[in-house]
Amino acid sequence: MFEQLGLIGCGLMGGSFALALKRAGLVKRVVGYSKSPSTTQRALSMGVIDVEAPSALLAVSGADIVLLAVPVSATEATLKAIRHLVSKDMLIMDVGSTKRDVIDAARRVLRDNIGAFVPCHPIAGKEASGVDHADADLYVGKQVVVTPIERTLPGHLQRAIQVWEALQCNVTRMTPESHDAAFAAVSHLPHLIAFALVNGIASQPQGQEFLQLAGPGFRDFTRIAAGEPKLWRDVLLANRQELLAQSQVFQRTLQAMEAMVEAGNADALEGFIAQASNLRANWRMGAKKP
Amino acid sequence: MFEQLGLIGCGLMGGSFALALKRAGLVKRVVGYSKSPSTTQRALSMGVIDVEAPSALLAVSGADIVLLAVPVSATEATLKAIRHLVSKDMLIMDVGSTKRDVIDAARRVLRDNIGAFVPCHPIAGKEASGVDHADADLYVGKQVVVTPIERTLPGHLQRAIQVWEALQCNVTRMTPESHDAAFAAVSHLPHLIAFALVNGIASQPQGQEFLQLAGPGFRDFTRIAAGEPKLWRDVLLANRQELLAQSQVFQRTLQAMEAMVEAGNADALEGFIAQASNLRANWRMGAKKP
Repeated sequence: MFEQLGLIGCGLMGGSFALALKRAGLVKRVVGYSKSPSTTQRALSMGVIDVEAPSALLAVSGADIVLLAVPVSATEATLKAIRHLVSKDMLIMDVGSTKRDVIDAARRVLRDNIGAFVPCHPIAGKEASGVDHADADLYVGKQVVVTPIERTLPGHLQRAIQVWEALQCNVTRMTPESHDAAFAAVSHLPHLIAFALVNGIASQPQGQEFLQLAGPGFRDFTRIAAGEPKLWRDVLLANRQELLAQSQVFQRTLQAMEAMVEAGNADALEGFIAQASNLRANWRMGAKKP
Repeated sequence: MFEQLGLIGCGLMGGSFALALKRAGLVKRVVGYSKSPSTTQRALSMGVIDVEAPSALLAVSGADIVLLAVPVSATEATLKAIRHLVSKDMLIMDVGSTKRDVIDAARRVLRDNIGAFVPCHPIAGKEASGVDHADADLYVGKQVVVTPIERTLPGHLQRAIQVWEALQCNVTRMTPESHDAAFAAVSHLPHLIAFALVNGIASQPQGQEFLQLAGPGFRDFTRIAAGEPKLWRDVLLANRQELLAQSQVFQRTLQAMEAMVEAGNADALEGFIAQASNLRANWRMGAKKP
């Protein structure tokens, strides 16, 4: 049980966390801050937060648990804004979809208090963002990856895991490097590919005509290409090293398939497609490890 | 109004065409042939066809309209089987998803009767195949691309368009080359990419762990990777020239994005993502030309 949640960023992710924590009876009071005053006011009027803080620093004042729910590119500036009130007694978590850059920022800013910070990535979201879509059920049944470093305080790590499990999440522990490689492979690279595919088609003289003929396969394949430009710009840049490494693996695999197609090697091509088809047909979202 | 449809291939595509043509009152009798006798029998018992033909050749005997609804790789053998009964009075159509290879086969086999053949690609399908899923509504509201060549008889082309329009399809006319380029771009390349992405991830030591973390974006992006191996092997090989050309366009675009990511060029990257995001957000499946 926590006395006070300091919530920095009262949007979809942060607002849903506050609602879920309250519903679970795990916190007495939520003090919230958002960069946009209208968001903070809306969070207050919706009951997502109990008190409006005029700054990130004041949101942290008196908190025993702090959630950073800001874009990953804003992590360092946010930590700088609060560092004078951060102590090792305070559990600090984030919800960023990249972890190495967030941890690097936390090391630079928090220094000796880095042990208070437990890097987290809850794999949850909605098409719509903003506090208006905050939902106490957003995290229920979802995976949360925690990526502690050697200096993370074990007691804080354990409490962070307990919090997410109390919200009915499945918690997985990974190194920050494995986390970033995994999400480069299964999320960031597919976005990069979808953006490139759409723009590559549109760049051709008959591109508009081609797009008019596209069907349900194209619709689903390119759904993620409609993502928010600033958000994806930041994610792709934040995880650039792992993203570029995964893109190389992908292009080598694509070029191996092209060679089969070019050579008319029907057996190899069929075997390769069958492998992908079996893998995908047997894949289930959020499947637990055996 | 036709006297007799000769249906070669009584599966989902062919069976649905026969049901739709009957429902529209456009044909008196359907004589059907499938490679698998059990399919032909099932088509007969379902009322998809009225008479079972013991061979492709006999399905064509007496027909004034013929539909080839066989895998594209079987087109040439099928045309060879029927060519002795093909005449210029007969309207012959296909439903293949590639057009240049089908037309090349038709030129080689039909020779002076090539004018009877109107190459068609109805953009319709279901997850499930087979005559059991044949549906008189399969083509309703769908696009059909017709790709006549210079020797296609104008009267036959006009009748083919009338037939599809009577089935409530939107007919688009393209050259075979543009058709194949378009489908390489919006269908065949996305499949190639999805197969390569899934296999590229699975080939890594932590691949299984990565896949367990994948979410709804990955789910939709890779849905087409579960496609049927033999079918996609044939499509990718049949359209290899345009597919490889489109894959080059895609890889150049991807590499341009990689350069922006590597250089940390946030403005260029955001602009590029915004272009893709706008295009995709404004795209509607089956949108008619303005």
